[in-house]
Amino acid sequence: MATVAADTSANPAETVRAEIRSGRHTTVTTGLAPGYLQANLVILPADWADEFSAFCTANPKACPLIAQSTVGDPTLPTLGRDIDVRTNLPRYRVFRDGLQSSEETDISPLWRDDLVAFTLGCSYSFEAALLDAGVPIRHMEQGKKVCTYRTGIDTVPAGRFHGKMVVSMRNFTAANAIRAIEITSRFPRVHGAPIHFGDPSAIGIADIDKPEFGGDPDIRPGETPLFWACGVTPQTVIEEVKPPFCITHKAGHMLITDLLNEAFRTS
Amino acid sequence: MATVAADTSANPAETVRAEIRSGRHTTVTTGLAPGYLQANLVILPADWADEFSAFCTANPKACPLIAQSTVGDPTLPTLGRDIDVRTNLPRYRVFRDGLQSSEETDISPLWRDDLVAFTLGCSYSFEAALLDAGVPIRHMEQGKKVCTYRTGIDTVPAGRFHGKMVVSMRNFTAANAIRAIEITSRFPRVHGAPIHFGDPSAIGIADIDKPEFGGDPDIRPGETPLFWACGVTPQTVIEEVKPPFCITHKAGHMLITDLLNEAFRTS
Repeated sequence: MATVAADTSANPAETVRAEIRSGRHTTVTTGLAPGYLQANLVILPADWADEFSAFCTANPKACPLIAQSTVGDPTLPTLGRDIDVRTNLPRYRVFRDGLQSSEETDISPLWRDDLVAFTLGCSYSFEAALLDAGVPIRHMEQGKKVCTYRTGIDTVPAGRFHGKMVVSMRNFTAANAIRAIEITSRFPRVHGAPIHFGDPSAIGIADIDKPEFGGDPDIRPGETPLFWACGVTPQTVIEEVKPPFCITHKAGHMLITDLLNEAFRTS
Repeated sequence: MATVAADTSANPAETVRAEIRSGRHTTVTTGLAPGYLQANLVILPADWADEFSAFCTANPKACPLIAQSTVGDPTLPTLGRDIDVRTNLPRYRVFRDGLQSSEETDISPLWRDDLVAFTLGCSYSFEAALLDAGVPIRHMEQGKKVCTYRTGIDTVPAGRFHGKMVVSMRNFTAANAIRAIEITSRFPRVHGAPIHFGDPSAIGIADIDKPEFGGDPDIRPGETPLFWACGVTPQTVIEEVKPPFCITHKAGHMLITDLLNEAFRTS
């Protein structure tokens, strides 16, 4: 009687994580393992964890919580069978008292028994859905990073956490902007619909041509900028709130999970 | 042994239809029988029906077909047990060779064995959903009719049917515009998401202050006009295509069905 061999082959997300773990990939994860959910990372000491969890709950568009580790455990089994947040992201930022003290490609030496890892949904998921629907994304066409901006919008405070929201910007024709709002509203756990469109000054962006991060915007006549809450928001909050120790991913250098983007579509 | 009496009480839609049928209500149906789907009406001779059905299929945002009668039958049992399109709308427009020949409150004397009735979804359904979500609608606050405009957008032709799209306009702050797009995209069978926002001239509207129908628009600083495909589109198409005979509802004087708006929400 024939037996069926168990499928032990790695999925594309596992393959990329192995490349990152080995140190062979240390740059951005844009476009890697298409279809798989990528996530923002925030690691905090346990005595800050409950308040950060409450902050995420209070700010679901900027900080859509996907998974949270147990204290001292660097694995996230709900996101993938082999995930270890100490080595599975290509690049990390280490903060001490709210100031970046170093950038790392492996945080194993910095891990502590009192740390808790949080992962937050990322706009890469909805960008894939936009492209699938034929909605072009200018910065991707031009091989640039998405533009992000600090805004004047206050996040909802929780415990010691407070600060301004960071947004990412993508520009579209009116028809594609409507499609983009329709589509991204179906992904509430990866930032959902935009929080604003049109006049940047209405959300405290003084000059749209000067993003905080990312490449030069290229907004053409007839196009409207749309602004989404961004998973980099916790990093500006950390700078404001100054916990003694914190590690985050570096913008664009995400955790690639075994979950499919499509599993996060609400309809 | 006790018996349970059958519930023979009329639902709110039936109650309003009875008022209309009796001639006691002959004005717009805005706000009547809240929660019940209202519909646009187009009645055509059978030899135009297949092409009109194809036209609706080709233009689902302007002409979302809800029900179609059999030839010569003025009832629409899928929309309500007592519906008769000859008497159940408060006001009708009668067209001969593309020109309005009269307005009627009862078209029984005009009914013919070769007529087919089409009903199309109406934006009243999504307006109710917007208000339920706390998104204010200026023209309703001011007790005005919604503004509608002929555009330069060609509908997709089908058979002999062709012509320009009519749109309705509602203006919002950016945050409420995003909510309005999110919500209306959940109602694809009642026009769905807007087809445009912002610059009216981009869709061939020369002067937003001069609507074809409806009251004076009141667009305030920081607000954006959103434009939805409108169920009045067939009336301008009829004027263009000039079938020998056609009856429609008069704008705002809709068929109130027994179907609930919520049944048309996709998620």
